[in-house]
Amino acid sequence: MTNPDGSSPPNTTQSPPPPLPPAASDLERGTAAGGGVSNIFRRWKREDLLKRCLLASRLTGFVFSLLAFVIMASNRHGDWKEFEKYEEYRYVLAIAILSTLYTGLQAWRQIHELYTGREMFSRQNLAMVDFFGDQIVAYLLISAASSAVPLTNRMREGADNIFTDASASAISMEFLAFFSLALSALISGYKLSNQSYI
Amino acid sequence: MTNPDGSSPPNTTQSPPPPLPPAASDLERGTAAGGGVSNIFRRWKREDLLKRCLLASRLTGFVFSLLAFVIMASNRHGDWKEFEKYEEYRYVLAIAILSTLYTGLQAWRQIHELYTGREMFSRQNLAMVDFFGDQIVAYLLISAASSAVPLTNRMREGADNIFTDASASAISMEFLAFFSLALSALISGYKLSNQSYI
Repeated sequence: MTNPDGSSPPNTTQSPPPPLPPAASDLERGTAAGGGVSNIFRRWKREDLLKRCLLASRLTGFVFSLLAFVIMASNRHGDWKEFEKYEEYRYVLAIAILSTLYTGLQAWRQIHELYTGREMFSRQNLAMVDFFGDQIVAYLLISAASSAVPLTNRMREGADNIFTDASASAISMEFLAFFSLALSALISGYKLSNQSYI
Repeated sequence: MTNPDGSSPPNTTQSPPPPLPPAASDLERGTAAGGGVSNIFRRWKREDLLKRCLLASRLTGFVFSLLAFVIMASNRHGDWKEFEKYEEYRYVLAIAILSTLYTGLQAWRQIHELYTGREMFSRQNLAMVDFFGDQIVAYLLISAASSAVPLTNRMREGADNIFTDASASAISMEFLAFFSLALSALISGYKLSNQSYI
């Protein structure tokens, strides 16, 4: 009655159980293997997305830092309207230069890796440098921007001219660069703690 | 010759192999189970250590914020030596109050959980609130502290009295509170991305 090779047509009503177990186990094995592979692919996809977000936030940070740097460095209009006469504006300029260099180098490295496919440094060291670099630059940017706000406010109460306007826009650019770097620190912090040690 | 129940004394030299396989498999099973349990214990231990570090950094942050708040709020010496006349010092005071409340509430909640063993909120929501709260308060603290530095520097060039000294010490306390909160944001960021969803 039983049909061990499982090649019977479906109208044999006496023995339904025999062909079922191998089919079920095949199905299970198939989904397990497929699940593992799709998990790895999903992981790769997520890591790729994170990398792109990180690159985008760094490029945004680079553009805003560069703008802050250029606007503040060209903010010289004679007499008291020289940025070098105020320590706040010198601080803003210094941090804008630092942030431009940092974000520029990081973005260049990431684009280089994206095109050549080779990684320049070991992944684990890099994740640490990434996270601490982003976080420290973000703290420096908000510190510089907020240190220059009260002076500019006080100046604009008296007179509203090209010097105060340029200062205000440089400070705004630095705040925007801060938001990009804060986002970037968030993403690289996530990458740091979720990296695989395989 | 073979002794299946394994109760033979050790001086039976004719049959050494039979008792060995079960012993080896027992050993293996033992270490595997021990390894799993010790892994779980190690994880608990690490989580416990993280919790303690988080609590310590928040308590430190609370003490420094409270000091900044008290020093700045009592910084009233008549004439131009009133903290309310300067927007930077008002900002320092406002952020010191906010930080005192935030760190105080968080530390109180953690101590309460430590003693009662019950968690007040769901763990996943809490990790998000923890991390974003710590990070935002850290950014606000460094922003307030650095906004008040240039004004104090300028005042101290002219005159060095109790008002400028108190301002400087309040700002220093706020910087120290910032370092505690930055550490706390680091730890809660690690907790957020390593939390178990079991």
